[in-house]
Amino acid sequence: MSVPNDGLNMELKPIGVIHSPYKDRKECPPQGREEICEIEMFDEYAEGLKDIDGFSHLILIYWLHQGKDFSLLVETPWNSELHGVFATRSPNRPNPFGFSVVELLARSGNRLRVKGLDALEGTPLLDIKPYLQEIDAKVNVRTGWVKGTDFSKVYGKSIRESKHVQ
Amino acid sequence: MSVPNDGLNMELKPIGVIHSPYKDRKECPPQGREEICEIEMFDEYAEGLKDIDGFSHLILIYWLHQGKDFSLLVETPWNSELHGVFATRSPNRPNPFGFSVVELLARSGNRLRVKGLDALEGTPLLDIKPYLQEIDAKVNVRTGWVKGTDFSKVYGKSIRESKHVQ
Repeated sequence: MSVPNDGLNMELKPIGVIHSPYKDRKECPPQGREEICEIEMFDEYAEGLKDIDGFSHLILIYWLHQGKDFSLLVETPWNSELHGVFATRSPNRPNPFGFSVVELLARSGNRLRVKGLDALEGTPLLDIKPYLQEIDAKVNVRTGWVKGTDFSKVYGKSIRESKHVQ
Repeated sequence: MSVPNDGLNMELKPIGVIHSPYKDRKECPPQGREEICEIEMFDEYAEGLKDIDGFSHLILIYWLHQGKDFSLLVETPWNSELHGVFATRSPNRPNPFGFSVVELLARSGNRLRVKGLDALEGTPLLDIKPYLQEIDAKVNVRTGWVKGTDFSKVYGKSIRESKHVQ
């Protein structure tokens, strides 16, 4: 069938930029991190932050600008098998979206200090949504091939600490 | 500062299309729903679904193709105040991304039957990620202006049942 965006304008608008202690992928472990990042919203979108201070957690969607070309089957750091890219959190995806639920520590004007963000310096930010535990948090989840993977063997950290499970 | 995508190719690739019982926004309550939707992956991306069957829940990112122009301050069905668009789940956003964590019921080849998806018929799908409770589910969340909103007054359902809190 035809691609459904015939006639659609699917043009992305960066709404801000992420400032991170990590400058490139080589520096950046595929791991959770406790580092603090700062989001700089562009002035023309800053008004859209009204009332955001009341939320403890935010959903961020961003563009993984240092990603490589995607493959449909990918190897991860966690085992030697090939998995379908949509069954992994690999950054090399057809649409290289980053996704993190971060903790909002503070806001100062058009800048947000956040914790738990898996992104590199200069990453274009595409969307912020408030995280609502009642609808976004799921329990009794099955995690397929990830279940039983011994993450500690690879990085010496448990999956609970891991932010970026590829 | 300059927009960070100078020289970047941020072109979106629809990877599939969502089939939903709802045909347009008028039919579609801003509510959670228990209807079953079907995701049709385009053939050229189907291989990327390998191993997806093992996951009970998936993160879906899609393009809200029937959205209107965005405003930075928006009114929601929940109260009469204006909120910053990034402190709401309004579909009318600078980048009109839909986001849902859905339950995967069944897979048949390049088709996925899912529950809990807030999208209209024909919605272009942009990404699928496995939902990992350990990193994606947050607890002890503050929900700002949403907290204390009496959703039952508007729709007779609790927020716990609500999927689409604008």
